[in-house]
Amino acid sequence: MNNGSESKIIDGRKLAKKIEREVKEDADQLRAQGVIPCLASILVGDDAASKLYISLKHRACDRAGILAKDYHLPSETSQGELTELIERLNQDDEVHAILVQLPLPESINEQEVMETIDPSKDADGFHPFNMGRLLIGNEGLVPCTPRGIIRALDEYQVNVEGKHAVVVGHSNVVGKPMAAMLLNRNATVSVCHVYTQDLNKFTSQADILIVATGVKHLIREDMVKEGSIIFDVGITEENGKIYGDVDYENVIERASLITPVPGGVGPVTVSILLEHVIKACRSSIKN
Amino acid sequence: MNNGSESKIIDGRKLAKKIEREVKEDADQLRAQGVIPCLASILVGDDAASKLYISLKHRACDRAGILAKDYHLPSETSQGELTELIERLNQDDEVHAILVQLPLPESINEQEVMETIDPSKDADGFHPFNMGRLLIGNEGLVPCTPRGIIRALDEYQVNVEGKHAVVVGHSNVVGKPMAAMLLNRNATVSVCHVYTQDLNKFTSQADILIVATGVKHLIREDMVKEGSIIFDVGITEENGKIYGDVDYENVIERASLITPVPGGVGPVTVSILLEHVIKACRSSIKN
Repeated sequence: MNNGSESKIIDGRKLAKKIEREVKEDADQLRAQGVIPCLASILVGDDAASKLYISLKHRACDRAGILAKDYHLPSETSQGELTELIERLNQDDEVHAILVQLPLPESINEQEVMETIDPSKDADGFHPFNMGRLLIGNEGLVPCTPRGIIRALDEYQVNVEGKHAVVVGHSNVVGKPMAAMLLNRNATVSVCHVYTQDLNKFTSQADILIVATGVKHLIREDMVKEGSIIFDVGITEENGKIYGDVDYENVIERASLITPVPGGVGPVTVSILLEHVIKACRSSIKN
Repeated sequence: MNNGSESKIIDGRKLAKKIEREVKEDADQLRAQGVIPCLASILVGDDAASKLYISLKHRACDRAGILAKDYHLPSETSQGELTELIERLNQDDEVHAILVQLPLPESINEQEVMETIDPSKDADGFHPFNMGRLLIGNEGLVPCTPRGIIRALDEYQVNVEGKHAVVVGHSNVVGKPMAAMLLNRNATVSVCHVYTQDLNKFTSQADILIVATGVKHLIREDMVKEGSIIFDVGITEENGKIYGDVDYENVIERASLITPVPGGVGPVTVSILLEHVIKACRSSIKN
């Protein structure tokens, strides 16, 4: 790595800590008013990665003064049982936000489950009502990863208006909501994916490049524009090592700003979840 | 115009008639079951263009065997009065679809009005719940213009998967839902707009070009790719003549398929509205 490359690195852990501190202040203020901001999380089954994610989220809640209620259901839980629990939590005034850890067992229809969550308690922002508001430019509770990337762009004072942003990956969780948020801020947006012919042509034109494919080191040095800003959402684990979608060590030479993996987008995503609990809690008080 | 250019023209009036015939068959079938498919339309105020659009839609309903109920409210109607009417129509089992003609008077919050319509009766597909389902790939009642363009692509057997589709304009009514529908079909999608630098660079790379800006003849011959497919959504009236966003007479030379203005996208949009009434009517029977 060249000297001075450190100033190019978007330090996700540092930004996450800053957001957490803000959330902690908000949470303390709410507690002083007698309201304990509370996230209910639901995990169905015993997937090891899901358990890890839930425990990361719970620890972040603890640090930030948010009460985390843990619902761990057996993998044979039926759609009806899960729905019933969500409806109970929708009604519970002491629960401000609900998170259902994905993926769910195959016997359960994820989309129906997402639509059961009260949109005003939708911690992950996956409910169609919230996704639709996002698409039309009214961003309330929105998917956490793209929201975190927007927050990082703000933090580094990047104005996206008129810039060419290229999103690689068109998932419902990252790519599509990311594209909508960039459009809402008047970026010119291209969305590429596995069906794209000549990916290189698009990525090498990007002022801002956001990659969320889960393909290890898909983006090489020759595929990015000099001076571009790069967000790497991908995570691939191989022999106990973590890789991103971007060949970071080489690509960093050409980037003006770039997120590492790990320690980039991931930690910010978790801190945005905490922000959502505060947001949901505040609007429940207003209503 | 060269010889043979006629085969390049996407005849919107012809396609609209075909869709209307299909709707008529469906409507006849429903009537035979004792159900009269019914659209309630609400017009607030006396805007001349809005009155014209409403009357076009009503005449199309008549031709297709759909009952059109007309609610014409004075321009001083309050938000509360409009909301009350919509809620009454939401409850009315004989009304299957509701259309609120836009724009509404400035004193009324359009977004709140859209969110009042029962999503299952949302003829125009503008409710956030329907927009969100669209974004995540579950297309039910969706905005009529982009849906009509998808129908035209199907009609002309254009497979968009892997193609580069460029959408010019990022409105909630056309550009953004259009981009979502193309992504759902695995096109590579770029969305440009008034903030885009070097529009030419994008349009000239487009296999499929969709223009919805309202800027007369924005797209010139030198801005399009040889053999591209072009949809022109724009309408500008000047001295009693109608112009599109595309300089049709010259651009047609380079296109493999193109919509004229008038007689292109417009008539198809109206026929899609009729389809939506049938769709909403059918699902009301199922429930």
